[in-house]
Amino acid sequence: MSTKPCVILNEPQLAENIGSVARVMANFGLEDLRMVRPRDGWPQDRAWASASGANWPLEGARVFDRIEDAIADLHRVYATTARPREVVLPVITPREAAGELHAAAGEGLNTGLLFGGERAGLETQDIALCRAIVTIPIDPRFRSLNLAQAVAINAYEWKTAEADRPPPAFREGAPVADQAMLDGLYGHLEGELETAGFFHPAAKKPSMVRNLRAIFARSGLNEQEVRTLRGVVTALSRGRGQVLAKLAAKKTVKAKADE
Amino acid sequence: MSTKPCVILNEPQLAENIGSVARVMANFGLEDLRMVRPRDGWPQDRAWASASGANWPLEGARVFDRIEDAIADLHRVYATTARPREVVLPVITPREAAGELHAAAGEGLNTGLLFGGERAGLETQDIALCRAIVTIPIDPRFRSLNLAQAVAINAYEWKTAEADRPPPAFREGAPVADQAMLDGLYGHLEGELETAGFFHPAAKKPSMVRNLRAIFARSGLNEQEVRTLRGVVTALSRGRGQVLAKLAAKKTVKAKADE
Repeated sequence: MSTKPCVILNEPQLAENIGSVARVMANFGLEDLRMVRPRDGWPQDRAWASASGANWPLEGARVFDRIEDAIADLHRVYATTARPREVVLPVITPREAAGELHAAAGEGLNTGLLFGGERAGLETQDIALCRAIVTIPIDPRFRSLNLAQAVAINAYEWKTAEADRPPPAFREGAPVADQAMLDGLYGHLEGELETAGFFHPAAKKPSMVRNLRAIFARSGLNEQEVRTLRGVVTALSRGRGQVLAKLAAKKTVKAKADE
Repeated sequence: MSTKPCVILNEPQLAENIGSVARVMANFGLEDLRMVRPRDGWPQDRAWASASGANWPLEGARVFDRIEDAIADLHRVYATTARPREVVLPVITPREAAGELHAAAGEGLNTGLLFGGERAGLETQDIALCRAIVTIPIDPRFRSLNLAQAVAINAYEWKTAEADRPPPAFREGAPVADQAMLDGLYGHLEGELETAGFFHPAAKKPSMVRNLRAIFARSGLNEQEVRTLRGVVTALSRGRGQVLAKLAAKKTVKAKADE
């Protein structure tokens, strides 16, 4: 458990930017850097060259194939993007996010800030894994914000809020589910829906999946709730199997009667 | 008169950083870029290359030999530095500075944010020209903040505060002195003090000058007050001249009496 948010870079392109991110993380006391599919592989010398000596986030950086794996141990992830898309999630400022990050840490939760790559930003299905969308108040006439700048502003707000944060409280009730548990729920639910022919037409499956995930992501499920929901999925899908079995049995009976 | 702060870079070294500064200025709606003695001259192609299309602050950028000239038309300048030195000025946060910048703009004052170069930062005599010192809450274990990041955080706070700013008020009383008027006062005062042998020992002159300037800088003098102070300096120095003349006259009288 860490009381500091980790920084997750999705598909970062330029090693210089990764190094600059490490530098601002060090400026504001953050340490845990994670990357999903860095374009040019990892490690890259040019990242160290642009970190100006802030080597420790780079030395400790971990690389993942999927965002879901990069955030598996986190309980609350915020997606920083200038372009909120068609996902039903709260849109908050970096300042509000900083307050929530400290509050969550005070409850013993692991947190993270997710950033998109330089060119593409974040895909809607990535955003749908997150608790909320953090939008920096950019001038609409020039929206092209450098990746390290986006990290800097969020890290700065986190550091600024650190001074004001209340003493850590103990969270009451069941522990909050981490991303790995949520991922298990999503896989279970979506697999059963696939079997049931729910994703129809097929072209709409991605948006249907992300809308479902966003519902659970923003609700902040605890572990018990995830177990309950998986029980629901199991019960429903078994029920469907029973219905099919009954239908099949009826057909058999009917066929026999027709003989 | 502009309602937006200008950005003044003192002795910037890397063209890439100047371009990155232009980019974050555009991100947060700032336009007026000024430079004092850029190390490699101006213009520099690499600045445009790193501005990612935010060309207008670069096209309109002005270059000066002295900070005093770069801020001559400004009424309120804030020095951003991570290392406040032995200058008696208020030390405020970027958020507080943003509030003051908007309040000053609401009174029709021209404002600016002054940043030091990558290596040296700001000299104490530069800081002494400013209204206050803006300090970003950096982790003391890694203070090396990139120049464009420092600009970004201040510009972000300015933009964030823009949404909350009160309707512009009309300032009552005399207009606030701009830097050119203050510079005239400083030159006048220091010249007279030099003549009077005030700066003794000579090695202490720089710190004595900056301590004096900081007193006036942080007091926010209006034009009438500057005229009054110049009158004070004139009166005092003429008086000293008269005292010397009287002494000389006495000596002459005494010498004559001794004949």
